[in-house]
Amino acid sequence: MTGEILVSEVGPRDGLQSIRSIMPLESKKAWIDAEAAAGVREIEVGSFVPAKLLPQLADTAEVVAHARTIPGLAVAVLVPNLKGAEAAVQAGAHKITIPLSASETHSLKNVRRTHAQMLDEVRGIVALLRSLPAGQRPRFEGGLSTAFGCTLEGDVPADRVVRLAESLMEAGCDEVGLSDTTGYANPAQVKDLVRRVRGAVGDHALSGLHLHNTRGLGLANVLAGLEVGITTFDSSLGGLGGCPFAPGASGNIVTEDLVFMLEAMGIRTGIDLPRLLAVREILRSAVPGEEIHGFTPAAGLPLGFRPATSPGASA
Amino acid sequence: MTGEILVSEVGPRDGLQSIRSIMPLESKKAWIDAEAAAGVREIEVGSFVPAKLLPQLADTAEVVAHARTIPGLAVAVLVPNLKGAEAAVQAGAHKITIPLSASETHSLKNVRRTHAQMLDEVRGIVALLRSLPAGQRPRFEGGLSTAFGCTLEGDVPADRVVRLAESLMEAGCDEVGLSDTTGYANPAQVKDLVRRVRGAVGDHALSGLHLHNTRGLGLANVLAGLEVGITTFDSSLGGLGGCPFAPGASGNIVTEDLVFMLEAMGIRTGIDLPRLLAVREILRSAVPGEEIHGFTPAAGLPLGFRPATSPGASA
Repeated sequence: MTGEILVSEVGPRDGLQSIRSIMPLESKKAWIDAEAAAGVREIEVGSFVPAKLLPQLADTAEVVAHARTIPGLAVAVLVPNLKGAEAAVQAGAHKITIPLSASETHSLKNVRRTHAQMLDEVRGIVALLRSLPAGQRPRFEGGLSTAFGCTLEGDVPADRVVRLAESLMEAGCDEVGLSDTTGYANPAQVKDLVRRVRGAVGDHALSGLHLHNTRGLGLANVLAGLEVGITTFDSSLGGLGGCPFAPGASGNIVTEDLVFMLEAMGIRTGIDLPRLLAVREILRSAVPGEEIHGFTPAAGLPLGFRPATSPGASA
Repeated sequence: MTGEILVSEVGPRDGLQSIRSIMPLESKKAWIDAEAAAGVREIEVGSFVPAKLLPQLADTAEVVAHARTIPGLAVAVLVPNLKGAEAAVQAGAHKITIPLSASETHSLKNVRRTHAQMLDEVRGIVALLRSLPAGQRPRFEGGLSTAFGCTLEGDVPADRVVRLAESLMEAGCDEVGLSDTTGYANPAQVKDLVRRVRGAVGDHALSGLHLHNTRGLGLANVLAGLEVGITTFDSSLGGLGGCPFAPGASGNIVTEDLVFMLEAMGIRTGIDLPRLLAVREILRSAVPGEEIHGFTPAAGLPLGFRPATSPGASA
């Protein structure tokens, strides 16, 4: 728990897809620039889905093109299928994640595909990626959504998550991730499921968790993840797109609170917290009608707060 | 982490002292009755301070008298000094807590007393309690406030907290508690400080933590406490009195979210969560102008949620 932890900002994708406002391209660029300047090293900048479905993310190719110009930044995107992956490769994303819902009911409802159909799609993407020169091949993650429970099915058995993780790795993914899409996870479950999945696919094939704060347990679940060796956590600046008082909201962990917790614990993130807090202003002016969350921003940093990050580390 | 955990409700004291509204006596009684009926086994029902200072708690003696009639309920109160302790004994409280601020600056500002003066007060209370027949002697806790940091002093050295815990036990307290009055605590610090204090005064002399959620880390800090053997956690129904967007607010952990986390983890609290959630209605009608918080209440329980508490355990 003393090494550096990767905080992966997903606001420009998960946050923006969950709100009504459409953020202008220039604001997205400014947001990404400012977070990278604050020391954030991985940002999920968009999703390659039909613009008809998510007009908020219609400019993802341009966002990727811009984000790629920022030195040291890993540019991640979500894709729902092979077509999306082709667009992601075309745009030059460094990392591609395809979500696979552990709840088949959710998968059918959400993308109208069975697990078998989704695994076919994964194999198609792997074939595409393997056809590329090694230097141009993005990292490919299978993201297991509803891994901790489903609003349609309720319990999602851990065995099924483990089996799907194995299938994703067998299909050729570089790694898998676990997503608490519904905010059902608790710390005991996080530890248990991470251990089981790692036991099946190997420690290095599972490094990341995408946790929500829907029931207030987000950071407790992060702590549980840290304690079983997880090194990457997704979060969203200002908790954008998530509001506990709006049913169905995603409720992402707030990046500012996550970074505060880690740095206060002496765990380096490489992120300069005061600079990160200042990025909220970009959100406020770019999507003025949307609620911006966060406990640490509201309360301020403790008097005499010393981050784990050494001065200048984020420069 | 699999035994039963005591959730100690502090809303009628810490919540009500932090809001403007004055809750009528009958509502306080109804609130306490309803929480006890939901399975809550310890409630801090008030504070014996001059009514001029805290008119919200002026009826504490009547509240104690009522709460004492509830079978199996431990009735706790806060006292600032010997005079308050006399009133608490008179009223028949089962547990008395005196706060001692680990930050002497905070102590001087808050109660105009040095550590030495406060320890004298503690000794006076111990003498009073020892003069009582054993069956009528309330449990006496020294509550170390600002134990994790102070808004006036910043860092509060762990060594000082350990020394004060020793002094409280030497002065005759039955136990000590640690309070994150300022919401400065982080999980690593919680583990470290609990271990140090327990190392000095013994495991049984430190069983409880009073944590705040000011910076969103409340439940992560609870998890850290659980992992080092803490068995009692304070919290406030609806997070009453705490609002992250009001500077200086106490920001107590929300009882509903705490109970959800524990029960979801398979840790029994003896509390029936749906019944607990229903108690919020009493708050709403008794102090209609006040904000009632909580993630779990807003999101609802997960589909198919199974509490650790066996059915009927809270009856």
